[in-house]
Amino acid sequence: MTDTLPTLADIPNGIVSLSDYERFAGETLDTNAWAYFSGASADEITARWNRQAFDRVGLESRVLRHGKGGHTRVELFGKKFEHPILVAPVAHQMLAHPDGEQATAVAAAALDAGFVVSTLASMRLEDIAVAAGPRIWFQLYMQPDRAATLDLVRRAETAGYEAIVVTVDAPVSGARNREQRAGFRLPDGMSAVNLGDYAQHVPSAALQSVVFEHFLPIAAVWSDIEWLAANTSLPVILKGILNADDAERALGYGAAGLIVSNHGGRTLDTLPPTFTVLPRIVDRVAGRAPVLVDGGIRRGTDVLKCIACGASAVMVGRPIVYGLAVAGVRGVAHVLRILRDELELAMALTGCRTLSDAGRDLLVTDPLQLKL
Amino acid sequence: MTDTLPTLADIPNGIVSLSDYERFAGETLDTNAWAYFSGASADEITARWNRQAFDRVGLESRVLRHGKGGHTRVELFGKKFEHPILVAPVAHQMLAHPDGEQATAVAAAALDAGFVVSTLASMRLEDIAVAAGPRIWFQLYMQPDRAATLDLVRRAETAGYEAIVVTVDAPVSGARNREQRAGFRLPDGMSAVNLGDYAQHVPSAALQSVVFEHFLPIAAVWSDIEWLAANTSLPVILKGILNADDAERALGYGAAGLIVSNHGGRTLDTLPPTFTVLPRIVDRVAGRAPVLVDGGIRRGTDVLKCIACGASAVMVGRPIVYGLAVAGVRGVAHVLRILRDELELAMALTGCRTLSDAGRDLLVTDPLQLKL
Amino acid sequence: MTDTLPTLADIPNGIVSLSDYERFAGETLDTNAWAYFSGASADEITARWNRQAFDRVGLESRVLRHGKGGHTRVELFGKKFEHPILVAPVAHQMLAHPDGEQATAVAAAALDAGFVVSTLASMRLEDIAVAAGPRIWFQLYMQPDRAATLDLVRRAETAGYEAIVVTVDAPVSGARNREQRAGFRLPDGMSAVNLGDYAQHVPSAALQSVVFEHFLPIAAVWSDIEWLAANTSLPVILKGILNADDAERALGYGAAGLIVSNHGGRTLDTLPPTFTVLPRIVDRVAGRAPVLVDGGIRRGTDVLKCIACGASAVMVGRPIVYGLAVAGVRGVAHVLRILRDELELAMALTGCRTLSDAGRDLLVTDPLQLKL
Amino acid sequence: MTDTLPTLADIPNGIVSLSDYERFAGETLDTNAWAYFSGASADEITARWNRQAFDRVGLESRVLRHGKGGHTRVELFGKKFEHPILVAPVAHQMLAHPDGEQATAVAAAALDAGFVVSTLASMRLEDIAVAAGPRIWFQLYMQPDRAATLDLVRRAETAGYEAIVVTVDAPVSGARNREQRAGFRLPDGMSAVNLGDYAQHVPSAALQSVVFEHFLPIAAVWSDIEWLAANTSLPVILKGILNADDAERALGYGAAGLIVSNHGGRTLDTLPPTFTVLPRIVDRVAGRAPVLVDGGIRRGTDVLKCIACGASAVMVGRPIVYGLAVAGVRGVAHVLRILRDELELAMALTGCRTLSDAGRDLLVTDPLQLKL
Ligand SMILES: Cc1cc2nc3c(=O)[nH]c(=O)nc-3n(C[C@H](O)[C@H](O)[C@H](O)COP(=O)(O)O)c2cc1C
Ligand SMILES: Cc1cc2nc3c(=O)[nH]c(=O)nc-3n(C[C@H](O)[C@H](O)[C@H](O)COP(=O)(O)O)c2cc1C
Ligand SMILES: Cc1cc2nc3c(=O)[nH]c(=O)nc-3n(C[C@H](O)[C@H](O)[C@H](O)COP(=O)(O)O)c2cc1C
Ligand SMILES: Cc1cc2nc3c(=O)[nH]c(=O)nc-3n(C[C@H](O)[C@H](O)[C@H](O)COP(=O)(O)O)c2cc1C
Repeated sequence: MTDTLPTLADIPNGIVSLSDYERFAGETLDTNAWAYFSGASADEITARWNRQAFDRVGLESRVLRHGKGGHTRVELFGKKFEHPILVAPVAHQMLAHPDGEQATAVAAAALDAGFVVSTLASMRLEDIAVAAGPRIWFQLYMQPDRAATLDLVRRAETAGYEAIVVTVDAPVSGARNREQRAGFRLPDGMSAVNLGDYAQHVPSAALQSVVFEHFLPIAAVWSDIEWLAANTSLPVILKGILNADDAERALGYGAAGLIVSNHGGRTLDTLPPTFTVLPRIVDRVAGRAPVLVDGGIRRGTDVLKCIACGASAVMVGRPIVYGLAVAGVRGVAHVLRILRDELELAMALTGCRTLSDAGRDLLVTDPLQLKL
Repeated sequence: MTDTLPTLADIPNGIVSLSDYERFAGETLDTNAWAYFSGASADEITARWNRQAFDRVGLESRVLRHGKGGHTRVELFGKKFEHPILVAPVAHQMLAHPDGEQATAVAAAALDAGFVVSTLASMRLEDIAVAAGPRIWFQLYMQPDRAATLDLVRRAETAGYEAIVVTVDAPVSGARNREQRAGFRLPDGMSAVNLGDYAQHVPSAALQSVVFEHFLPIAAVWSDIEWLAANTSLPVILKGILNADDAERALGYGAAGLIVSNHGGRTLDTLPPTFTVLPRIVDRVAGRAPVLVDGGIRRGTDVLKCIACGASAVMVGRPIVYGLAVAGVRGVAHVLRILRDELELAMALTGCRTLSDAGRDLLVTDPLQLKL
Repeated sequence: MTDTLPTLADIPNGIVSLSDYERFAGETLDTNAWAYFSGASADEITARWNRQAFDRVGLESRVLRHGKGGHTRVELFGKKFEHPILVAPVAHQMLAHPDGEQATAVAAAALDAGFVVSTLASMRLEDIAVAAGPRIWFQLYMQPDRAATLDLVRRAETAGYEAIVVTVDAPVSGARNREQRAGFRLPDGMSAVNLGDYAQHVPSAALQSVVFEHFLPIAAVWSDIEWLAANTSLPVILKGILNADDAERALGYGAAGLIVSNHGGRTLDTLPPTFTVLPRIVDRVAGRAPVLVDGGIRRGTDVLKCIACGASAVMVGRPIVYGLAVAGVRGVAHVLRILRDELELAMALTGCRTLSDAGRDLLVTDPLQLKL
Repeated sequence: MTDTLPTLADIPNGIVSLSDYERFAGETLDTNAWAYFSGASADEITARWNRQAFDRVGLESRVLRHGKGGHTRVELFGKKFEHPILVAPVAHQMLAHPDGEQATAVAAAALDAGFVVSTLASMRLEDIAVAAGPRIWFQLYMQPDRAATLDLVRRAETAGYEAIVVTVDAPVSGARNREQRAGFRLPDGMSAVNLGDYAQHVPSAALQSVVFEHFLPIAAVWSDIEWLAANTSLPVILKGILNADDAERALGYGAAGLIVSNHGGRTLDTLPPTFTVLPRIVDRVAGRAPVLVDGGIRRGTDVLKCIACGASAVMVGRPIVYGLAVAGVRGVAHVLRILRDELELAMALTGCRTLSDAGRDLLVTDPLQLKL
């Protein structure tokens, strides 16, 4: 770690929003890393939809209400969070900054943000935990061997992670054309260190279909979720749910929570944007478990719109690594600070003292349409 | 004042519409002032929506009607106005032109336009009133101290203002990223002179949440409106109402009129455009009080569309300061002249002799949609 | 006239559609003339809508039908037309080409197209008639003095015009900003020669409202139509009708036909596109009179779509003068030839032997919308 | 043939999707050939719609399902296909690459793709068959003389073609403006060799209407289909059906299958996109015959969307010739490989083990619309 105390002193001038961080990161990162972090699948339609879905929906203003004593606090799985903005699991963060996941951990802790560490972190999950605050979760890619999976879970439990986030939407890797065009590969010396001890499964060249003959046979299925939930005391949260039927199944197989996610548009292109599928999932879950959401959240208003739809909290992916790339710990902290400030502004101007004041009546679904 | 008699003699060639003034102002103003006047909140979606909402709606033509004796007159709060176009309150006008609010006042008077003076004017409200015509209103930002608020109101009453416009949509300032990126600040020597005599409230650096712990606790609430209405003989008009429930409340707490406004998109981004929320508010108010509207009005057809929806009058913000920046008094006068001429054209071509001929049947909500 | 026999020999290479003529005309005409011909009112929204309305609607294909003996013939007001494409009245055609309206007349005759001569033609209506074929109509702007109006009508009758097209949508001139910015004026020596003998009415500078005090008082009203219809044996066709109520009135006051038109977007901006209002007008007229339409027709498919909606024929404005500007008689002829060829193609591929085979079932109103 | 064994060794770097091939082909082909292959009719609206129709529709994700043993196999007209992606008939392939249709045949065979050979191939259908795999069909343009038609069919039968695809949507050639502007003509030595032996019908210059007097009288009609079906033992498949009524008729006149196609937008502009008309046709056919579809298919997700709507298989046109132009056999093979891989990915991520798992519930028709 080059520094541990986040201050915003040397953030470049003119950075005042998450989109500014994106722009600056595009100039800071090399082509390889930029393609990896910013890219999405195929024509990146889902990635764009994630943003557009928010930008088409309006918020009701409500004026002259008492706002004193308001706050952004939320409780998730029995733990208190100062605000509903979590850091999404993003692999290989040392590609963005030498301080990698530890820097992100420090910033998240300083800004009271929950932090989800990826299975594919570029640092050992134990080392990240040391730098982190109390609200950390471990994102798990189920391994072909249950023993490996269980070992990862035990390590996370031991290191103090408070939940297991199982990412279920990536049994195969998406057609990430931007990465492919850039010829992306991890730099020498960087790797998924947390998986170093387990056997890797490389597809044989002789297969007719790498999808149906290699990847799907070793991919997790619903019964594996049941097994996992039975084998850890931590809440198991499924990440990558996009419709009500899978949400229902998730609860049935033991999930304690859900994250509505399309992996930031990085798996299958033209999966629907997360924001528009959120209400149906919230309706089906009907309070039986917290529903979180990620994908394209860049503004405090986006956060509030999700909460208004019934999400308990949100996660942010790319902006975090952009902050990391541009200014390390301070960048990540600044990203989180901006987003939280914007959320408070949005609450103030829509007359919400607490997040529970934000319901669906806050949302204007067709703001441009004149109705007479 | 460099001149008092508006003539259009030395307007730059090629200025024939309000959008031309915008373009010229962008070239005339320095980056600082341009960011301040033209900027809006966050991604400026609401600001764009304000315009798009008008540009998507059609007007019915009605031909061969008698038009003789037609006029644009309207009565508001017992006073006659030659036409329904008012100058919206815009702060710090000396940033646009050394003649500042006085120039605007002169031009508004010459063009028979109502003029609303901002609490944050760069000239003393008394000095502006001297230059102004009879139809002036005072825009009030409620002060944390009731004494200060009352003092402002008394000064306005004394100076001859005919109404108090209380802006209720800005308890906190929006995330005006364009301004922030430009590092906007008022030039030396310019300030909100009308507030100079009252104590200012600066947020302490120690606060966890500047929104919930500083701004909201000192912000006005509904009961303050009731108190204000009880303490002035002038009509109290609430500016910044965007939905029917708040409109209802406003009337209940003593407002004599409403201005449907999202502050030109400068407070919370993705608030709905004013034009599309107007009909529901007019319906709820149901004639109990005049409803005005502002935001994105740039064409005579925009004015007519608002009137057709049931607005009593409209206000125009940025174009006025663009006119001021480009050509001082003459520029403001020209802006108002263009808009009024365009309104008359629009009335003539839609077969309206008077504004009361313009009803909702004049509006085509989906002009591009073929219906078979 | 520099030539009388249209051949397509020296049309510039690469001109294969009406949009090519637009492009070439933009390069051929000087700024002044280009602004006049291509410009429309205000932000030119209606002009764009005219085009977009066609481009959003699909056509059904119908295959393997017998097409032998098919044709494009149509009868209007008791006269036979080889095809339903007429030349719209466009003023001041000598601004496009020294051969002016005479060239257009020759080309229209050669291509069997009906030709409507504007009151504001740059050549005498009598001289144009000499060069023209049998299918010519006279477009009339009603004059403030009935005597002048009647004189124009008598001259048209005498010269062999077969119908009087009364343009009713321009009692005042639109805010044609593009022209204004270009400082458009007629070149020396060019004028509305057909009006030279009548007294002109210039607005006095002293007026408060030039619209309500000058133009509307001298504008025609419904009873003038009744008077006109009673005073000529020619069919009176009203041009500039945009809704069913005015269509009904038109028939009531003696009109023998209607032209659905928004003057190519040149009068009031945001009037609806002609194509989308056409069906409601056709429905109301219910066969009592022919309904024609103009505005944005640039493709054979546009013609067919109008016919399918129930129009009897269409008129084309700007493309004609673009053809004239680029290549005189030959250009106009080529424009008409392209459009007719495209119409025949469209008929062939939609399985229409004659225009009466084209009904509303040919139109796909939401071609991009998947319906499951 | 310069080579027969497809390897992907020397594909240019950075080609990872079909759109990359389009880009590279645009740089490889000369203006003439590029205009021919990439162009479409008139304003190319239908061509764009073909793509947009896919890009507006979402796919449901379904997670954690068993995928082992999955495959892409499909049966058509009693024959097995490894996957549902066929090569559409595209004329004059030697214009793209000297190896022409033979190269395409080799690549299609190597990738187990059905291949449809055009009547207008630049090589003799017998010579193409020699290079091809077992799954080849012959695309037939019905000739004015039945004898010529029958001769073509007999040659195809003899050469081993397994079906006759009759293209019915081009009785006349579309207004292909891009080609016309480029002055497209076939290079010397290239021609529609398969028609060389039959008399050609050239329109006489004296005709009034080349469409109604030349082309339509010699065009095929429904009874010709009946005759053809009765005169060949091969299944007759009609290509170019765009609505349910024509689909019904096709079955009635003896068609064994249908291809929903608008000829890649090359005949009549503003014909609807094939994807949106597909469901109604599938519904009407109701399993009586296989329904295939082409037009704008560029992604595995597009293929899956068509299958989900009820198509049995899809065809791909331009991308194949782009692959051919860029890298001959290897290019075509790569295009097919990419598309099949993407299809498998799409199946995996939507939880489809086989194509029959893909139903309409997989499709999200309005993915951006928030519904509360
Ligand atoms: C570069 C990158 C790497 C990611 N790595 C992981 C990962 O290892 N595990 C995981 O569950 N999600 C991963 N994600 C998905 C994120 O957790 C999250 O769902 C997504 O980024 C949210 O969208 P946003 O980036 O638009 O905020 C990754 C996303 C990105 C952009
Ligand atoms: C530079 C600027 C300063 C403004 N200052 C004030 C103000 O002091 N008080 C207020 O009530 N509204 C203020 N407004 C909002 C305007 O009164 C008005 O609501 C808005 O400008 C209308 O939108 P328009 O600019 O699109 O016409 C300001 C607007 C701008 C652009
Ligand atoms: C330059 C120009 C001059 C016109 N002059 C007349 C005119 O004198 N009388 C009239 O009735 N319409 C006039 N029109 C309107 C046309 O008759 C017609 O309604 C319109 O051009 C149709 O739209 P289009 O140009 O998109 O085809 C004029 C249009 C243009 C573009
Ligand atoms: C250059 C070109 C030539 C074509 N030639 C033929 C042909 O000879 N016969 C035919 O039935 N279709 C022909 N087609 C249409 C294709 O079979 C197919 O319908 C179309 O290309 C599918 O759309 P896509 O190109 O977007 O994939 C041709 C298409 C192109 C682009």
